[in-house]
Amino acid sequence: MSTLPDVFADPEDSQLVADAKKDKPEDHEFSYTERDVILYNLGVGATAKDLQWTYESHEEFGALPTFGVIPQFAASSGVSLGWLPNFNPAKLLHGEQYLAIKGPIPTEGNFVNETRLLEVLDKGKAASVTTIVYTKDVTTGNVIFENQITVFIRGAGGFGGKRSGRDRGAATAVNTPPNRQPDAVIEEKTSASQAALYRLSGDYNPLHIDPSFAAIGGFDQPILHGLCFMGIAAKHVLQSFGAYEDIKVRFSGVVFPGETLVTEMWKTGNKVIFSAKTKERGTTVLAAAAVTLIDTDMMAKL
Amino acid sequence: MSTLPDVFADPEDSQLVADAKKDKPEDHEFSYTERDVILYNLGVGATAKDLQWTYESHEEFGALPTFGVIPQFAASSGVSLGWLPNFNPAKLLHGEQYLAIKGPIPTEGNFVNETRLLEVLDKGKAASVTTIVYTKDVTTGNVIFENQITVFIRGAGGFGGKRSGRDRGAATAVNTPPNRQPDAVIEEKTSASQAALYRLSGDYNPLHIDPSFAAIGGFDQPILHGLCFMGIAAKHVLQSFGAYEDIKVRFSGVVFPGETLVTEMWKTGNKVIFSAKTKERGTTVLAAAAVTLIDTDMMAKL
Repeated sequence: MSTLPDVFADPEDSQLVADAKKDKPEDHEFSYTERDVILYNLGVGATAKDLQWTYESHEEFGALPTFGVIPQFAASSGVSLGWLPNFNPAKLLHGEQYLAIKGPIPTEGNFVNETRLLEVLDKGKAASVTTIVYTKDVTTGNVIFENQITVFIRGAGGFGGKRSGRDRGAATAVNTPPNRQPDAVIEEKTSASQAALYRLSGDYNPLHIDPSFAAIGGFDQPILHGLCFMGIAAKHVLQSFGAYEDIKVRFSGVVFPGETLVTEMWKTGNKVIFSAKTKERGTTVLAAAAVTLIDTDMMAKL
Repeated sequence: MSTLPDVFADPEDSQLVADAKKDKPEDHEFSYTERDVILYNLGVGATAKDLQWTYESHEEFGALPTFGVIPQFAASSGVSLGWLPNFNPAKLLHGEQYLAIKGPIPTEGNFVNETRLLEVLDKGKAASVTTIVYTKDVTTGNVIFENQITVFIRGAGGFGGKRSGRDRGAATAVNTPPNRQPDAVIEEKTSASQAALYRLSGDYNPLHIDPSFAAIGGFDQPILHGLCFMGIAAKHVLQSFGAYEDIKVRFSGVVFPGETLVTEMWKTGNKVIFSAKTKERGTTVLAAAAVTLIDTDMMAKL
């Protein structure tokens, strides 16, 4: 039974976009074990000291919350964008990611992903496409994760669609850091083989390991997965401020495996706004980013 | 169809041992994918620079030869030793490992393991038990690996068996290093999370990750898997002298994750004798060790 509507129709959509939205992707299954959870956690920098993330018999063993991007990855990556004018997959960039954690994350599971086109914007020179994925536990029927993934495809605009998107709350919030020193800063040196390890969680794009492929993409060396350093920064937020129910980031730069990620965090109300940069080059790699903290006081009152 | 004889009978065996050898373990299946091969290779220190070991699309992609200990691990670990007098699994030590690579290692496969008790020795205070495992490719029926695994069980001797074993060639060779400087030395610093990563290849013994469990075993901190640092040292031999068809080691000390392994190698004929120690403590951790190099000249003549 579908949880998402069949089509996220928008009266401002052009006919091209309206038709594309009607092409409903097939549901996509994803199963995982405790071993996959540990492998993901290690992939985003959990260590042997973090037994709750790396030792399946620890009493608080579990997935880091950003594991929520993994079960949906093949589903959202598989959405056809060939209907866009001048579509070239080599010109696709991962722009933004929003993840909401809607229930406890099982340490092993059988999930099914429902995927829809949520929003398609004509940015003139580029297209901006946002896909929404609901990830449900097959056993309970409960939705565990919601993802909204925005990709930019350079050279694929000019098809006459709407230019600006709707306000989708936390998924589109600008999250400008306040004008003061951060409340917390965590540095973490990534491993030179961080991408080689992270890719075993399901993103085997050679851009992240093959130097000759990276060169074609214009990079001197393979780059770390955006979702990998999102996971590392999110771990820093979790370690500093506790559990959160959603996270949103904009990918604004690349990280090379072996570089040091510096996460700066500001608590404002029930949000933690954060950004991340590479220590070696000073490049901001995550911007407009925030989590919504779980209101543990309210949970205690219930 | 069995490749190994049903019983490795020995006229000098006591009745206890003769009976134990008749208890034929069930065949044990093991399937793996390219992902498992990469995970193993990373677990023994292969890096993103070693594309032939970490990138499935590399033209020479493959498993490191010591991957051969992985498919048989559950099979040999599952052999019952409860028939030994005063058997206590906490008093079991992995003493020696012999591995012969008998055919090309597929990058994914469906294998079946045949396991037998090969030799049981009464060392007085301890029992020494050697298990032999043949690992066959289900698809072709070819034997890919032979393993001989020797464990010592302290406090489980005195049952009246034979005291000394037969000469089993490379599997029992003493491999004394020649009295000269080594022909090659390679140092490699292990990661503090090396054991946390290696255990995902199938040995989930908490001794290698849980500090409280390690303390019960008498260790200040969790110790690295013996088969992990055997794999690291064997990688050094491969990098220095090329492919080999078998390897034998004696485990003579422990390595703590994060320590530096120093492998010293001496080429003598078609053998490379080697030993390994920790740089930080100077403890010898692999002794009586050697590989038999593949005679590539002979292969070229065939």
